[in-house]
Amino acid sequence: MTRHPNFSAGPAKIPDEVLQQAQLELMDFADTGMSVMEVSHRSPGFIAIAEQAVSDFRSLMAIPDNYSVLYMQGGATHQFSCVPWNLLGKSKKADYIDTGVWSQKAIKEASRLESSDIHIAGSVNETGLLAVPRNSDLSIRSDSTYLHYTPNETISGLEFSYIPETGDVPLVADMSSCILSQQYDVSKFGIIYAGAQKNIGPAGITWVIIRNDLLDQAVEHIPALMNYRSVIGQDSMLNTPPTYALYLSGLVFKWLKKQGGVAEIEKVNLQKAKLIYEVIDQGEFYMNTIEPSDRSKMNVTFSLANQSLDAKFIEESEKLGLYNLKGHRVVGGMRASIYNASSLESVQALSTFMNDFAKRYG
Amino acid sequence: MTRHPNFSAGPAKIPDEVLQQAQLELMDFADTGMSVMEVSHRSPGFIAIAEQAVSDFRSLMAIPDNYSVLYMQGGATHQFSCVPWNLLGKSKKADYIDTGVWSQKAIKEASRLESSDIHIAGSVNETGLLAVPRNSDLSIRSDSTYLHYTPNETISGLEFSYIPETGDVPLVADMSSCILSQQYDVSKFGIIYAGAQKNIGPAGITWVIIRNDLLDQAVEHIPALMNYRSVIGQDSMLNTPPTYALYLSGLVFKWLKKQGGVAEIEKVNLQKAKLIYEVIDQGEFYMNTIEPSDRSKMNVTFSLANQSLDAKFIEESEKLGLYNLKGHRVVGGMRASIYNASSLESVQALSTFMNDFAKRYG
Repeated sequence: MTRHPNFSAGPAKIPDEVLQQAQLELMDFADTGMSVMEVSHRSPGFIAIAEQAVSDFRSLMAIPDNYSVLYMQGGATHQFSCVPWNLLGKSKKADYIDTGVWSQKAIKEASRLESSDIHIAGSVNETGLLAVPRNSDLSIRSDSTYLHYTPNETISGLEFSYIPETGDVPLVADMSSCILSQQYDVSKFGIIYAGAQKNIGPAGITWVIIRNDLLDQAVEHIPALMNYRSVIGQDSMLNTPPTYALYLSGLVFKWLKKQGGVAEIEKVNLQKAKLIYEVIDQGEFYMNTIEPSDRSKMNVTFSLANQSLDAKFIEESEKLGLYNLKGHRVVGGMRASIYNASSLESVQALSTFMNDFAKRYG
Repeated sequence: MTRHPNFSAGPAKIPDEVLQQAQLELMDFADTGMSVMEVSHRSPGFIAIAEQAVSDFRSLMAIPDNYSVLYMQGGATHQFSCVPWNLLGKSKKADYIDTGVWSQKAIKEASRLESSDIHIAGSVNETGLLAVPRNSDLSIRSDSTYLHYTPNETISGLEFSYIPETGDVPLVADMSSCILSQQYDVSKFGIIYAGAQKNIGPAGITWVIIRNDLLDQAVEHIPALMNYRSVIGQDSMLNTPPTYALYLSGLVFKWLKKQGGVAEIEKVNLQKAKLIYEVIDQGEFYMNTIEPSDRSKMNVTFSLANQSLDAKFIEESEKLGLYNLKGHRVVGGMRASIYNASSLESVQALSTFMNDFAKRYG
């Protein structure tokens, strides 16, 4: 068995050590004669797994005590609805920053809520290099219930290098593709949510962090499973949680702690991103159209100046076992997603290949 | 490694062969050098897995062509909201049969929808033995948008031995704990839904079958992820599906086909249930309080006449490797959940133990 470098944007690579442990105990967890996925979510053995995962997540993110942590299903898309439904019970005003496909999906769902009053506080700059709006250019309504933004746009490879200052307006962030990849000061946020399938684990579980004073302002008639307060009231077990995805999340959290936590992985992630951007920038062969300060450290997008070489690039990279470099169908080109589980070695291999390919065809 | 008989009500036992295959290919699926859970849901390899699973599910349930099949997240609890939200856009009238905890949860969520007009068409008979209402006792409103019922109540162990005749009113069934365990004529239903964690696979995926003429009557402002039409429009990939749970569902479907399909497993399931009910009925030591015709074939509930022996019963059963026989915390007593993946042998072992225990302490 050869495990290949895998640059998939999500569902994405999971650390080898995590999968090894999962494989070892798949049919028999801790000598119970049962798989983790075959036992009740209310059994003491499973409750211990769930509590440890939450506790490790809290410590990795340094989540203050006045925040609740919950896990749900439905990915970020479910949160696109949950956020407005949970927060717009009193005022219907919410502000959004539009930086691309994922922001727009969030905006669309918020607009679907009856009588919602959505204001675009800032947009991606598309003249010249793609750039997020500067903080000073944001027009945040002071009576808005929250400001929503997408710190990292997975598809275009655009990332905020700053956390927006919003005054008294709570900040809500879809961190699906950047959570745990760099240090964030959680106290600057009202809500953080992330689908797990990029930096945490397999698809099917969503992690949510919410400042407690933001609970209890849900719209009437909200379904129980969307209601943060109801879910928190049952320790995220209002219904059967996705137990195996939760267990795998927990294994990834343990692995990350062993790597030295977020501070250490952030250093590696910076190195990884630098390696690829350096290859892109050293000539005219590869192109990246993002403002340098706003380049994603998780999703490095690039295209070949000569697009007729695209198929060759993919073919040769796959021959070397470098998988899933094709860009998102919406934008084309190439994309190397280099989340926490992508090793420095695999990114070095990619960088070497890119250099070599450019030399041979440039 | 010893794999133990496991009578968990859900998440529940998964066939050994399925887990063996999952274990074998956990780190390297089909020589890709990647796990199934590490690849994009839009990759050709994964699309093939998804399509095969849907196709096998269709053939196992003999689903007619005028029905759509979709998979979602959030379990039956999510469907408790999805059903009224998708169907009550025109008329707000819906009828429900109340046969216990799970029916009541469905009723509660339907009542939460703005202006919904919910009528209880029939209730469990609680005088004497617990029994589902007879078809002739149901008071179904002829202009109701649908009638919802729970064919098998997992907690009390109560099962409908008949499919309600509803005239022109579409029938909606929460089959979470009985799907694929016996043959159902799908054409008698408007919607069937089931959380996977009992008869299909791991928690985190829900299978839904809907007659196409029932689409397009959703309430306004329904979140996209709750909207059956939107989900179907994207082949259940409106957002990232729970890919690993979907893969495991597919492996269980293949396993079930190898067992001869639903017709064959139904025979085994009848034998299994009979084995335990016979032990219960042969004396005064064990008690079951369900009308014989309405006894569940999936969740056999019973109590010991002498409750002071409960702890002993659990202790001795576990010593023999017979796990998870404790009844639901709401009702107490014992419960043996004997879904498709519980082998005849494991149920025989339970029956032998119960007989022996009764002899020794009776």
